[in-house]
Amino acid sequence: MPSQPVVVVLHDGRLPSTEEMAPVAEQAELRYVDEAGLADALPGADVLFAYHFLSRAVPDAWHATDGLQWLHVAAAGVDRFLSPEVVADPVVVTNSRGVFDAAIGEYVLGQVLAFAKDLPGAVRQQQQHEWQHRESERVAGTDALVVGTGPIGRAIAGALRAVGVSVRGAGRRARTDDPDFGTVCGPDDLPAELGAADWVVAAAPLTEATRGMFDAEAFAAMRPSARLINVGRGELVRTDELVAALRDGRLAGAALDVVDPEPLPTAHPLWDLPQVIITAHRSGDVVGWREELVRVFADNFVRWQGKQPLHNVVDKTLGYVPGS
Amino acid sequence: MPSQPVVVVLHDGRLPSTEEMAPVAEQAELRYVDEAGLADALPGADVLFAYHFLSRAVPDAWHATDGLQWLHVAAAGVDRFLSPEVVADPVVVTNSRGVFDAAIGEYVLGQVLAFAKDLPGAVRQQQQHEWQHRESERVAGTDALVVGTGPIGRAIAGALRAVGVSVRGAGRRARTDDPDFGTVCGPDDLPAELGAADWVVAAAPLTEATRGMFDAEAFAAMRPSARLINVGRGELVRTDELVAALRDGRLAGAALDVVDPEPLPTAHPLWDLPQVIITAHRSGDVVGWREELVRVFADNFVRWQGKQPLHNVVDKTLGYVPGS
Repeated sequence: MPSQPVVVVLHDGRLPSTEEMAPVAEQAELRYVDEAGLADALPGADVLFAYHFLSRAVPDAWHATDGLQWLHVAAAGVDRFLSPEVVADPVVVTNSRGVFDAAIGEYVLGQVLAFAKDLPGAVRQQQQHEWQHRESERVAGTDALVVGTGPIGRAIAGALRAVGVSVRGAGRRARTDDPDFGTVCGPDDLPAELGAADWVVAAAPLTEATRGMFDAEAFAAMRPSARLINVGRGELVRTDELVAALRDGRLAGAALDVVDPEPLPTAHPLWDLPQVIITAHRSGDVVGWREELVRVFADNFVRWQGKQPLHNVVDKTLGYVPGS
Repeated sequence: MPSQPVVVVLHDGRLPSTEEMAPVAEQAELRYVDEAGLADALPGADVLFAYHFLSRAVPDAWHATDGLQWLHVAAAGVDRFLSPEVVADPVVVTNSRGVFDAAIGEYVLGQVLAFAKDLPGAVRQQQQHEWQHRESERVAGTDALVVGTGPIGRAIAGALRAVGVSVRGAGRRARTDDPDFGTVCGPDDLPAELGAADWVVAAAPLTEATRGMFDAEAFAAMRPSARLINVGRGELVRTDELVAALRDGRLAGAALDVVDPEPLPTAHPLWDLPQVIITAHRSGDVVGWREELVRVFADNFVRWQGKQPLHNVVDKTLGYVPGS
């Protein structure tokens, strides 16, 4: 009988549900570890399941791997895992593409409507027991630019278009025949497209090409009436430059599910800007999401055991799963 | 040359825009009055334009009319105007049907998403500079019951259905072939339909048949996880019974654009219930709404001058514009 493969499960104290892990447990030796135990658990491991998807510990412990074949990340963004050593390693990296798409689409639409109807202002007026009429905005007929044309960006586009928002995409390569976006602008046209949008949605992976792309120059290209919605990664945005743009009225608002730094420090000025809505990196995390993340890994594990091609293989040089 | 018709314009200090009133001003003698001046202005008047749509002064001043032919209300709901004297009078009453539909549809969708994604909770956490992850809900696949099958209810149904919510209607007459709702339940099936909905939207006109329809009995029929969204009239809801249901956890939340009493008194318990979102009777009032309200009247005035049938004629016995 051949020896079982060794699967290291990196967790943050919360373990993946036994039920969803059953297909893996039946076929593998499981080593559950937190960040502190990671390096000791990696020697001899075949698979690393980063259920603790916010961890930055994997690159630091990478020296302890010896023949790890596959790293699966329980997140859509894998930026915290792709150190130069991991990129250079023959290890295959997969992500959890698909789990968050529709939920994030709903979240972005919710933030768009919250801005248009000033629901945060309503909450604050309510706290003051203040009955004060105000006019609001229509959403239909406005223009959105979704930066990032992966499945999350596509779900966002679908949610916005469903209520009459005109949506364009921004990606690495300009094209006019995209099945979801129609027009996708490339980097050259980005400033002009930023200037034509009422809503700019950051849904790109964090790569060296996208890091800090929302900076003072980008905000200067945007309409003063525009709002930025970031569901990608905090580091897509130059936070200090966003704060300055909001304070100076060069941008009308920002809904931030991800920030840099994250978690946002207690004394950070973003907390108190009235035109900012902050949520704690949860836009895709709907009831049942943790179980779904484990299912995605377990399904891929069964494929791996059967020597079938894995789903959601990351192009480690690009930094995301290509081909959408 | 025949004498010009006399049009009394009842306002609250804000006058309708001169530009939009121009077609009326060219053809009529205009008498602009506030509530205090109404009774003095009515003798000899042919038309009353209730631009001050929140006014309750018209029934009290009705004794001063002498041959008023037409009362136009700059609102969708005309409940404040339909006193027994007005109903018995041959006067034609019209409303502003259509102005608010799409905006209210967006508002309701925004409140549904705000509940599902707990945006009010995010605002409150942000005020505490608190970064706290939480799970949220999907909206697609949930069930909504829209009570009121007029054009506002239909716009709400369209907005909710666009994001994957299953929508049914509730009206005076049960039917299964409604073009927008598919299934519309009648009063007999209402308790069962209330119990099958995640979202119950009150979008009915206020009439003797609908006053207080959302009472303890209705809340008992609803799911403890359900949320009530009222964009109709505050008096559709028994406010004290709503407060009790929310406090006892028999209802998960309420988004109230209209309340009874309105404006909500400073000391009212509704203000401080954490699962309540209050907006100040503004769900349909998007930028430009006041001009649009005047345009609707002016268009109808041109029809009236030309002896064409008026748009949006209210069935005064029913209390709304029938036939949708």
